[in-house]
Amino acid sequence: MESQNILIKNAKILNPLGNGKTEEKNADVLIVEDKISEINKEIEESNAEKIIDASDKILMPGLVNTHTHISMSLLRGIADDLELDSWLNDYIWPMEAHLNREYCYIGALLGASEMIKSGTTCFSDMYFYMDGVAQAVEEIGMRAVLSYGMIDFGIKEKRENEFKENISLIKNHNNTADGRITTMFGPHSSYTASVELLERVRKEADRYNVGIHIHMNETMKEINDSKEAHENKRPFELLDSIGFLNSDVVAAHCVWLDEKEINLIKNNDVKVSHNPCSNMKLASGVAPIGELLKENICVSLGTDGASSNNNLDVFDEMKFAALLQKVHTLNPKLANADEVINMASYNGAKALNIDAGAIEVGKKADLILLDTKHPNMTPQSNTLSSNLVYSANGSNVDTTICNGKILMEGRKLLTVDEEHILSEAKRAIIEMKELKEAESE
Amino acid sequence: MESQNILIKNAKILNPLGNGKTEEKNADVLIVEDKISEINKEIEESNAEKIIDASDKILMPGLVNTHTHISMSLLRGIADDLELDSWLNDYIWPMEAHLNREYCYIGALLGASEMIKSGTTCFSDMYFYMDGVAQAVEEIGMRAVLSYGMIDFGIKEKRENEFKENISLIKNHNNTADGRITTMFGPHSSYTASVELLERVRKEADRYNVGIHIHMNETMKEINDSKEAHENKRPFELLDSIGFLNSDVVAAHCVWLDEKEINLIKNNDVKVSHNPCSNMKLASGVAPIGELLKENICVSLGTDGASSNNNLDVFDEMKFAALLQKVHTLNPKLANADEVINMASYNGAKALNIDAGAIEVGKKADLILLDTKHPNMTPQSNTLSSNLVYSANGSNVDTTICNGKILMEGRKLLTVDEEHILSEAKRAIIEMKELKEAESE
Repeated sequence: MESQNILIKNAKILNPLGNGKTEEKNADVLIVEDKISEINKEIEESNAEKIIDASDKILMPGLVNTHTHISMSLLRGIADDLELDSWLNDYIWPMEAHLNREYCYIGALLGASEMIKSGTTCFSDMYFYMDGVAQAVEEIGMRAVLSYGMIDFGIKEKRENEFKENISLIKNHNNTADGRITTMFGPHSSYTASVELLERVRKEADRYNVGIHIHMNETMKEINDSKEAHENKRPFELLDSIGFLNSDVVAAHCVWLDEKEINLIKNNDVKVSHNPCSNMKLASGVAPIGELLKENICVSLGTDGASSNNNLDVFDEMKFAALLQKVHTLNPKLANADEVINMASYNGAKALNIDAGAIEVGKKADLILLDTKHPNMTPQSNTLSSNLVYSANGSNVDTTICNGKILMEGRKLLTVDEEHILSEAKRAIIEMKELKEAESE
Repeated sequence: MESQNILIKNAKILNPLGNGKTEEKNADVLIVEDKISEINKEIEESNAEKIIDASDKILMPGLVNTHTHISMSLLRGIADDLELDSWLNDYIWPMEAHLNREYCYIGALLGASEMIKSGTTCFSDMYFYMDGVAQAVEEIGMRAVLSYGMIDFGIKEKRENEFKENISLIKNHNNTADGRITTMFGPHSSYTASVELLERVRKEADRYNVGIHIHMNETMKEINDSKEAHENKRPFELLDSIGFLNSDVVAAHCVWLDEKEINLIKNNDVKVSHNPCSNMKLASGVAPIGELLKENICVSLGTDGASSNNNLDVFDEMKFAALLQKVHTLNPKLANADEVINMASYNGAKALNIDAGAIEVGKKADLILLDTKHPNMTPQSNTLSSNLVYSANGSNVDTTICNGKILMEGRKLLTVDEEHILSEAKRAIIEMKELKEAESE
């Protein structure tokens, strides 16, 4: 993709301010190379090679999905409506056993296509064959923070292998693809990774100057198991006791938290990735988002993998986040539209340490345009946030721009062949099912 | 619209069976006039004037929205994130005071456009200026069950007027528009309508042979108020005591129910319209859907008005219905995909007494086709229900057919000028806001 200056004319801009509020304004926006270079009324058209007329469109930052397993898009709908144990043991893990680099590459292209088409410009991923995921991200043009899902169950040889994998990901891909790809360590959780693994992750993360992406406090069982295994310590207490917690940690889920753990999150500036759809679908529980927001903790949104959602549409996730808090607390004011917009953009960028998530001069040009000429987007009566959180879905996104390049325009993907990706994804899952059947014969 | 025979070729059919299960098959479907006339492998093409190639498409019954206030689409996003009292008193009612027949007609066209574009073929409405709503339904080609929102607050003159309005709706519009429009009585609720009004509604409904559409047990306050006003009777007990309950009653919300009330619903075969998004957004509470399903009560889905949702997409409503039950009960098996598909189609048709909601010979041809060639619909691994409930949104609907006529094809509305409706809706809400401001000066 050649770099070209892009001028977005006449947009209604919705800009998250990072304090739970948003501002609206009408202006033109000039993109030079990978950054927003000017925001003004009536910018000269001669400054740009490409002009987008955004009358009837809303311009906002591209959405940031801070917790997913993108290649699991291949496992979309493989099994639903089950107890977690049966879902994992009988369906997900037996299929995952047949993943390889090629399938993870195809799954990542499928998931990335879905994300671009629903307005997400950046995601944080934790999975396997991350080299294939990196290739997909490089080709399709999104921004991504990649980590390898490290699981040792206390076994030393496994542990060595996990560090080899994650460090190789960091060495090969950190700050590649014009800076669109960065990396993190991905210790899966405090119940699948040993204390030794977690301690070393902290050291290596400091050494390589990368963040840490981890599942935390997803189910009630996990809390009880932690207390039993670790001298009555809940998961965040365990991590605190080994000096693991820091502002570079993105903790996904955080459903079951007590007051002490909320204080640990706050005092260590840990970033929380809230995944309402997955927590609801797997019947994990309801994260105490109201209490986290009250403490000014940085809460962002994640879809989790497609097989526990079952889509990657962050617009969906915003509506679920807002509505779930309201009904759970019987307080309709909680998780208001502006706060949720901030979670899905500004806070996501902050959590992942990327210089995007707001429409300001100097920020990375990760932007989306939503078409308001749809019945579900008409009229706009109150705030733009209201329409975006409560009325919109990802299909209202018309244009997706990442790092100054247009990835979708008029709902057409520009960097990849969508039809080819869909047929490759169908082939991949059929082959995986055949491999699984052949094995069980 | 001229009637023409339509042949749908090579569809993957998802058919709800009415018992919480679905069946899948591959077949052709022939529509003659307003009905499904044949379902078979390889139906002769010469039988049809119009042939739809449905390879790569899912064919299912059009969705049924059993509780909405369609003209409130004009009030989409007028105010959000507020206590119910303030939302109604400070925002909704002051705007509703400036409604008229023309605005309700425009609001109904806006809402109907949104519903057709998200796969809904029939809705049950309760609002004002229902003559305008009937005109919109007649023109756009949907199926609808219309009722007038009767509120007397115990005042006799008001009561007389409400009966005049609702009976005039019945006389002018019941069984009109080729049978697409039927009518009901619409007593608003047991806290806004007097016992006298409710008693007379029961008599008049029997006389005119129409059903009854009513809000029931939406908030905890409503229950307490009912007990205080009516000798400790909860709302369903009150209605039972006056002989109101019957199989022709569609009760919207039903959030706060005790065991005795669930038995009254069951024994009187009252139909429940579950509105999860509205109940969540207004922080009303969580309806005990699991318990209702266990008792084989007919539960269908409603979006409520757009201003408490804020869209009319029943695909959204299906996902919310499934996920809310799971997390609220911490049981991932509850409200499974097949059950939710039945709620949104078969049960909805049953509740509204229309001969649709399933793909069977002789049923009304109210059908939709979803395009599977989208990333969020790829792959289909488990059941079609899984993709439809957990992955899809309304924008995946490609074609909407009602009463044997195509209302949308390739996402283009065929019976109305969508752009004109959107601009009329914008004009209407601007005028209403001006009227409101002029009044408060």
